[in-house]
Amino acid sequence: MTTQAPSREPSREPRQDRSRATRRRLLEAAVDCLASVGWAGTTVAVVAERAGVSRGAAQHHFRTREELVTAAVEYGSAVRIAQMRERLDAPSDRRPSTLEVVRLLGEMYTSPLFRAALQLWVAASSDEQLRAQVLPLEARVGREAHRLTVEALGADESIPGVRETVQATLDLVRGLGLAALLTDDSARRARLLAEWAKTLDKALDRPEK
Amino acid sequence: MTTQAPSREPSREPRQDRSRATRRRLLEAAVDCLASVGWAGTTVAVVAERAGVSRGAAQHHFRTREELVTAAVEYGSAVRIAQMRERLDAPSDRRPSTLEVVRLLGEMYTSPLFRAALQLWVAASSDEQLRAQVLPLEARVGREAHRLTVEALGADESIPGVRETVQATLDLVRGLGLAALLTDDSARRARLLAEWAKTLDKALDRPEK
Repeated sequence: MTTQAPSREPSREPRQDRSRATRRRLLEAAVDCLASVGWAGTTVAVVAERAGVSRGAAQHHFRTREELVTAAVEYGSAVRIAQMRERLDAPSDRRPSTLEVVRLLGEMYTSPLFRAALQLWVAASSDEQLRAQVLPLEARVGREAHRLTVEALGADESIPGVRETVQATLDLVRGLGLAALLTDDSARRARLLAEWAKTLDKALDRPEK
Repeated sequence: MTTQAPSREPSREPRQDRSRATRRRLLEAAVDCLASVGWAGTTVAVVAERAGVSRGAAQHHFRTREELVTAAVEYGSAVRIAQMRERLDAPSDRRPSTLEVVRLLGEMYTSPLFRAALQLWVAASSDEQLRAQVLPLEARVGREAHRLTVEALGADESIPGVRETVQATLDLVRGLGLAALLTDDSARRARLLAEWAKTLDKALDRPEK
């Protein structure tokens, strides 16, 4: 957008930066809030306080809890997938082992982000309007997580059964995320993922490392 | 409890029966209610109305929503596991195929009962008092589902890795239950479980049927 008052230009960029930073603080606080106090306790006002943002400023960015929470899970997922990609790509001369890949996925699906997303999915399951907002987000995040896993495992989906095995890996870690909701399930999860990595190597016909 | 008025004896049994029937109606209505309208909409009053029971009678059985919902998920799980056991045991001269077992588990974890349990787990994740009530229930249901699966598959858990593979099966169907929360995921689930049955047969060293 252009403006007729070029003298205001110098201050515009910083103001946009500040607005973006405020928005990001709200999104991060919303993920934390959902993961720790749940859907009912996560209102725009509570998140604003947690983020150190005035209620007015928060409401300028997000009018409703639904808007804020959906944007927060979308933002958190994008950040998490980018981080995963970075960790899997470096060092670029070595493909990560199957065990490293499934461990990273296990971490992703037991993070506060997963707990926050779970709150949103469950709330959407009995709220038609929210469900309509959440469905495209769920589909997009699902697709990206699938693509990331295929690439990380170097899986060849043209081989019959491989696509289903990759999907099973993601459904498995989702189930593990649910199992970690109420108790510290990390010891069992580590044993299970180690065994799963072996199964996966056999199913993908990949030499064990 | 004995009574000094033996003449009242004949009517006592039917009254106890009626009380048990009322209780059961409340528990069944609570599972349906949780699965369809979620935690926030499931109050003792709403469940009583759905069950066709007076509010007073409902409150005689369950003082709080937490008490009612925990008892409902416990009751529903016991019924479901008993039904599963019946279906797996008959006909007793033939062991069910791996595919039949994983399909039954897939059904169990996409039923209204799973959706109801999910509401309870998620509510408990941000409510310390409720979590204390839910933890023993979650552990008990988890143990029973595990035992049922081991028996149905005829899995030998003394072989290294078999226990983890059985557990992975349950975590997988739990993940599938979550994936079915917002959309009809049944076609993908069927393909995935068919492939999983093959993987499981290999891992358990069981001839494919």
